[in-house]
Amino acid sequence: MSQLRKDLISGRWVIIASERSKRPDDFRGAGEARTETADSFCPFCAGNESKTPPEVYALRREGTQPDQDGWSVRVVPNKFPALDRGEKTQRRQEGIFESMSGVGVHEVVIETPDHGLELSDVPLPHLRDVLETVRSRIISIEQEKQYQYVQVFKNKGRAAGASLSHPHSQIIATPIIPKRIKEELYSAERLFKKYQGCIFCRIIGQEMGLRQRIVYSDRHFCVLAPFASRFPFEMQVFPLRHSAHLADMTPEETESLAATLKSVLSKIKGLLSDPPYNLVLHQAPNPSLVQGDWPGMSKDYHWHMEIMPVLARVAGFELGTGFYINPVPPEAAAGFLLG
Amino acid sequence: MSQLRKDLISGRWVIIASERSKRPDDFRGAGEARTETADSFCPFCAGNESKTPPEVYALRREGTQPDQDGWSVRVVPNKFPALDRGEKTQRRQEGIFESMSGVGVHEVVIETPDHGLELSDVPLPHLRDVLETVRSRIISIEQEKQYQYVQVFKNKGRAAGASLSHPHSQIIATPIIPKRIKEELYSAERLFKKYQGCIFCRIIGQEMGLRQRIVYSDRHFCVLAPFASRFPFEMQVFPLRHSAHLADMTPEETESLAATLKSVLSKIKGLLSDPPYNLVLHQAPNPSLVQGDWPGMSKDYHWHMEIMPVLARVAGFELGTGFYINPVPPEAAAGFLLG
Repeated sequence: MSQLRKDLISGRWVIIASERSKRPDDFRGAGEARTETADSFCPFCAGNESKTPPEVYALRREGTQPDQDGWSVRVVPNKFPALDRGEKTQRRQEGIFESMSGVGVHEVVIETPDHGLELSDVPLPHLRDVLETVRSRIISIEQEKQYQYVQVFKNKGRAAGASLSHPHSQIIATPIIPKRIKEELYSAERLFKKYQGCIFCRIIGQEMGLRQRIVYSDRHFCVLAPFASRFPFEMQVFPLRHSAHLADMTPEETESLAATLKSVLSKIKGLLSDPPYNLVLHQAPNPSLVQGDWPGMSKDYHWHMEIMPVLARVAGFELGTGFYINPVPPEAAAGFLLG
Repeated sequence: MSQLRKDLISGRWVIIASERSKRPDDFRGAGEARTETADSFCPFCAGNESKTPPEVYALRREGTQPDQDGWSVRVVPNKFPALDRGEKTQRRQEGIFESMSGVGVHEVVIETPDHGLELSDVPLPHLRDVLETVRSRIISIEQEKQYQYVQVFKNKGRAAGASLSHPHSQIIATPIIPKRIKEELYSAERLFKKYQGCIFCRIIGQEMGLRQRIVYSDRHFCVLAPFASRFPFEMQVFPLRHSAHLADMTPEETESLAATLKSVLSKIKGLLSDPPYNLVLHQAPNPSLVQGDWPGMSKDYHWHMEIMPVLARVAGFELGTGFYINPVPPEAAAGFLLG
């Protein structure tokens, strides 16, 4: 089983994924570029259902059987999970260091049976189905009441960390709250007091008024290039209605989010030559766990997504100290994406 | 001039480097991989001194002139600086957002006149000269009393962010303290109180006793694979003597650091197929500025370097929420590097 380890100085948690760990010989030549060949065999394609662990959820044509063909969206446990379901996790002290067993959930959302159809290319109703599937899995995992936080993310392209090219997202549920989310929660609480209201709502209001960094907006969502963007063409997707959890979305809002994502993902694909990207959900911790020690989650926090293209020609970078250099002002990025 | 912008929620500062900014057409095709050809012309090579801004420091053979051949280590302002020297920086409010003009220093340390000679390959006395040069620049920039923090880092290889392959490091001095350093300072202060002593000294003591994660040690330095390593083969280089600033090093310690770096950089080059890497100095803020609002810097903090190889075959990655997955336990990494 994997291990969760806490960095004493930064408070950051790391999964040491021993299940994925390599033998010494795997390290030799580790610096060499991977050959970028097409996947010769894809376990996520229709017809290969037996090559994944048994599905935990799927949208299927009536009359079809689990782990058979006939699905449109399919969720399976990760075959090489970073974390595993198991006994309630216990903290362990190793000298001054803290660790715990790697108890958690690691699932893969296979977004379409069609290997070549990207999330930006699927029809809107299908994209809505993907979002409904993610929503359904979040609700189900949170009801297990063992995991403080459900992380949802999508790595597209090898340079963004994807090891398989078939369109998919990942869900990782952890017994602790990630560092950046914790910081955002505390910060949101502090800024709520300062501004007498949700700081995210306030930012959205200011940006919608200024219109300098807005990339997209409709009745329920807006997409903006953040004022202090770390990376060129970084984007944040916000629901206009204040809400701390993606799972709170109404069916109408889910439709709207599908249209929003289709629009911005198509734009970065078309205008930036189909770059690799990371998409990350930021939401409040598991609401089914009572956590007296966390800032008032639903009042202060506002869920959103971050989209970060990985761009070779205009890369921004981190100096290694939490300080970023970005060569593309967000106003220029928004202007370019608006066309 | 560039702009420094603060992210309201995270407190993170970003340099929006407009001097480096691109025209809209530069964005098209931004996702395409850069062609990895050898540099056809290198402004850092001996003989091309006129192609860089005038040098601010150099170690030269007696009788040679500035900006001529005859140097062994040379420091020049970055031709495309992220920050520029200028008027004292002023904070500006844009609605609820905070920014300031991009006043700062951005220099390049050209580590050798020889394009093909890496830092791990230069003779020990030369490596010591590079370190003495960095030390000298830090002291000089800190005496300007305008910059709260001096960042020193090395990106080797395109995948690590280097745009030129000639061996070089960079120095960026900023009017503010980077987020991660700030966090480390506060954390070090808090943990000093808890453990009645420097937490870094305590970690070094525990690790030197255990010997499970020590990659190298001599009379003055040790290198360890951190307990909660984010990346495979991540390393931290610590002086054994408690000190908050690299510039405090004695000549004997500088010799020792040169030998330490040569050992570990040669190891990752030889054993991991010459991977790209990032090397980052972590030290306390500028001691020549009196900063009443910062935790007792020299008592609590302990300077160190982080070395992060960029490894294609065993990549660790971040989930986008400050949570990392690392497939190589640091004990395995240390064992492998010890051979």
